[in-house]
Amino acid sequence: MGIAVYPGSFDPITFGHLDIIERASLLFDTVIVTVFDNASKSHQFSPEERVAMVRESTAHLANVQVEAFAGLLVDFVRDRGAKVIVKGLRAVSDFDYEFKMALMNKKLAPEVETVFMMTSSRYLYIASSLVKELFMYGACVEGLVPAAVLSRLRRGHIPAECG
Amino acid sequence: MGIAVYPGSFDPITFGHLDIIERASLLFDTVIVTVFDNASKSHQFSPEERVAMVRESTAHLANVQVEAFAGLLVDFVRDRGAKVIVKGLRAVSDFDYEFKMALMNKKLAPEVETVFMMTSSRYLYIASSLVKELFMYGACVEGLVPAAVLSRLRRGHIPAECG
Amino acid sequence: MGIAVYPGSFDPITFGHLDIIERASLLFDTVIVTVFDNASKSHQFSPEERVAMVRESTAHLANVQVEAFAGLLVDFVRDRGAKVIVKGLRAVSDFDYEFKMALMNKKLAPEVETVFMMTSSRYLYIASSLVKELFMYGACVEGLVPAAVLSRLRRGHIPAECG
Amino acid sequence: MGIAVYPGSFDPITFGHLDIIERASLLFDTVIVTVFDNASKSHQFSPEERVAMVRESTAHLANVQVEAFAGLLVDFVRDRGAKVIVKGLRAVSDFDYEFKMALMNKKLAPEVETVFMMTSSRYLYIASSLVKELFMYGACVEGLVPAAVLSRLRRGHIPAECG
Amino acid sequence: MGIAVYPGSFDPITFGHLDIIERASLLFDTVIVTVFDNASKSHQFSPEERVAMVRESTAHLANVQVEAFAGLLVDFVRDRGAKVIVKGLRAVSDFDYEFKMALMNKKLAPEVETVFMMTSSRYLYIASSLVKELFMYGACVEGLVPAAVLSRLRRGHIPAECG
Amino acid sequence: MGIAVYPGSFDPITFGHLDIIERASLLFDTVIVTVFDNASKSHQFSPEERVAMVRESTAHLANVQVEAFAGLLVDFVRDRGAKVIVKGLRAVSDFDYEFKMALMNKKLAPEVETVFMMTSSRYLYIASSLVKELFMYGACVEGLVPAAVLSRLRRGHIPAECG
Repeated sequence: MGIAVYPGSFDPITFGHLDIIERASLLFDTVIVTVFDNASKSHQFSPEERVAMVRESTAHLANVQVEAFAGLLVDFVRDRGAKVIVKGLRAVSDFDYEFKMALMNKKLAPEVETVFMMTSSRYLYIASSLVKELFMYGACVEGLVPAAVLSRLRRGHIPAECG
Repeated sequence: MGIAVYPGSFDPITFGHLDIIERASLLFDTVIVTVFDNASKSHQFSPEERVAMVRESTAHLANVQVEAFAGLLVDFVRDRGAKVIVKGLRAVSDFDYEFKMALMNKKLAPEVETVFMMTSSRYLYIASSLVKELFMYGACVEGLVPAAVLSRLRRGHIPAECG
Repeated sequence: MGIAVYPGSFDPITFGHLDIIERASLLFDTVIVTVFDNASKSHQFSPEERVAMVRESTAHLANVQVEAFAGLLVDFVRDRGAKVIVKGLRAVSDFDYEFKMALMNKKLAPEVETVFMMTSSRYLYIASSLVKELFMYGACVEGLVPAAVLSRLRRGHIPAECG
Repeated sequence: MGIAVYPGSFDPITFGHLDIIERASLLFDTVIVTVFDNASKSHQFSPEERVAMVRESTAHLANVQVEAFAGLLVDFVRDRGAKVIVKGLRAVSDFDYEFKMALMNKKLAPEVETVFMMTSSRYLYIASSLVKELFMYGACVEGLVPAAVLSRLRRGHIPAECG
Repeated sequence: MGIAVYPGSFDPITFGHLDIIERASLLFDTVIVTVFDNASKSHQFSPEERVAMVRESTAHLANVQVEAFAGLLVDFVRDRGAKVIVKGLRAVSDFDYEFKMALMNKKLAPEVETVFMMTSSRYLYIASSLVKELFMYGACVEGLVPAAVLSRLRRGHIPAECG
Repeated sequence: MGIAVYPGSFDPITFGHLDIIERASLLFDTVIVTVFDNASKSHQFSPEERVAMVRESTAHLANVQVEAFAGLLVDFVRDRGAKVIVKGLRAVSDFDYEFKMALMNKKLAPEVETVFMMTSSRYLYIASSLVKELFMYGACVEGLVPAAVLSRLRRGHIPAECG
């Protein structure tokens, strides 16, 4: 099915994201994970850190590429010759927003399809925003985020100790 | 992306279904439209009629096949060597049901993925059940269902006159 | 704002319906309450009883008329020279269905508008289906349905005793 | 917290139900699982079978009792001296219905509280209705329903074979 | 139906808003579009610009007036002698918020009704927030916003070029 | 049922919160109302004021305690020897967020249960955020917040006059 783009903030990448990436990599020839560098949103990690964490976490997936991007998603998709945007759905509140985004992207680029995959039930509760709340209070985040995130937390000033 | 299965009752096929089939046929090598013959549900059209209407409506799509089936969806999917189930999402009430179905099918056949496509906004309101309510009162259904359905209605005892 | 049509099964009319009718009667010159006589649905009360109960319960509202109807709603609306359909919204599940119905009716009769009113919070939980469950077990339904319904229950074989 | 009532059809009991029962049994002194015998709904299993399956599946829980009941839930709750109804929530569609039921029960019995517990994420997709669809096609239901259900299926004419 | 108030930020007005205004202007004697000047929210356009854009876009509608306002909506509604607030509904997430607002406004001003109109399906995906994201990246917004918005964008430093 | 924790910002406490606290105090031996002091969120009232207002409003409830807390909820719950978190549900948008939180808290502290109570229908529309919008415009908030909040508003520079 050619090239698919999986866009997000990945601040940081979680096991929920990784699950979608792994499953998408089985469906598409190439999956480009696009780390959005949206200046108007404040992030915990820099775009470089976010790209690095996604890259390390997906190193075992030969057909997955990782890129930072600032701009309009459909421009990126067209530029890479992709015809599919992959999104994960987790809950009804996701659905509403993603529905509007998908219709808007269809209007901007009618040849591009958005396909949705359901988040695995065991990762349903992992949102980057909740993970960051756990960071803030030094809670254990093992089992929520890949090793590439954990090692960065330990290297820095965030304890995230377990057990 | 190999073979995808698009399951449904198609009682009858609408322009909403056809829109999903056409868009899926651009993404997958082969799309098998699977017309469910679920004895416990009462249908307006027989399985043979429903298959025929889908077949005629998709005749212009070289990589689309149509089959009737009675049984468990994942059995059909595996049997045909498909790894993807395609579903259309239209509204939050769809989401809830489809979410549970996707998780259940994942449990039954972990190697099969369900991918969702958003119904085009201009077909959002077309449900087979509403179309059948229009039939019942002889209302015009042009613009809602393909010609293959219209001709069958005219041939039969259902007026469905327009303008 | 001319004539508005408020359609429903009213099997039986509840205080939730009456609340919408009373508020709509303040906004529109005339409100026609349309009691649907849908043969394919099984009802607790006959169309005649349902019309009678609505009529008695709205006798104090000079600009409210009550009619039974079998057919397509937009045909009725056009026939009466109305340009508005009034619906009550209570919950998200109503929204989804009503949204599709409103879009479909817009397609069938572009000159007719559907306007929605939110059910008053004190009547949010009153659905005709729940009321009928209470009937079934002889529970008190005072405070849920108008006197015209209560008297019919008492006259009949349904106790619905209170306190 | 005294006595809690956990009502349902349990046609049949699933691991989703059992999970709620086990967790509720840690919170309340006594949990009465109430198997509704609603004549107007058609069931796969008889009330006696459903009670037996719940009883066998909860035999390890000393403070759990199982009873069949036909009637109004709040009458049962009051009769047993309970002040809490326990319900499991799984999805938004549950929420809408349960919300109305909880408000209605509050009106009928102001002294009784409904408390909701979220279904564990690993059981989110298990609905009795989906389990029955699997039965119908002889699919494996291990991991979805307790042994007491499996043994009954094997004893009967339903294969439900696995792997 | 007298005077109706259609409140919003209109930052900027979209074809979605205009569609509701046009349809409301057929139902009510007068529609007052109220541009909220909420100091605590940051806006792309000044209140003056927003009013001007709404005014130019509704110049063809004789019974539509446009005003800026800072304060409590129900105070404005009462002050103008209106008895109806018109809101557009697009999605379930709108519904939840609007439901609470409508109940609150009912409590503050029981004589004022909120009536909801469904956004036309072809404008469902147009939210001012998405339109502003498109601005930010210089994407074409023709077909999303009226000429009065487009001309302001071109006059300013925002390209919004098409084709 | 031992100790339950009812967490929130309470900025300020409303009759909606108080209703949940009163009903929870009938179910549990002790209810600890936990006023979160989340530095990253901006509040109308200081943590001390919020605690004081909750304390005054719950003075009539012998088994209710009030504490400020900054940190991870499950740490607080464990520290106090509680095994239940109580949350109020009001609408579908609450449900989605609370669902994720409950699953996450279950992962962090499997021995702690979250139980949900439905907000009484007469308080459904009272959100602290809407109350603060009313403050901002000097609207009457009697009937929405307890006397302890009203007196603080009058003492300060906020009129909140009624009638």
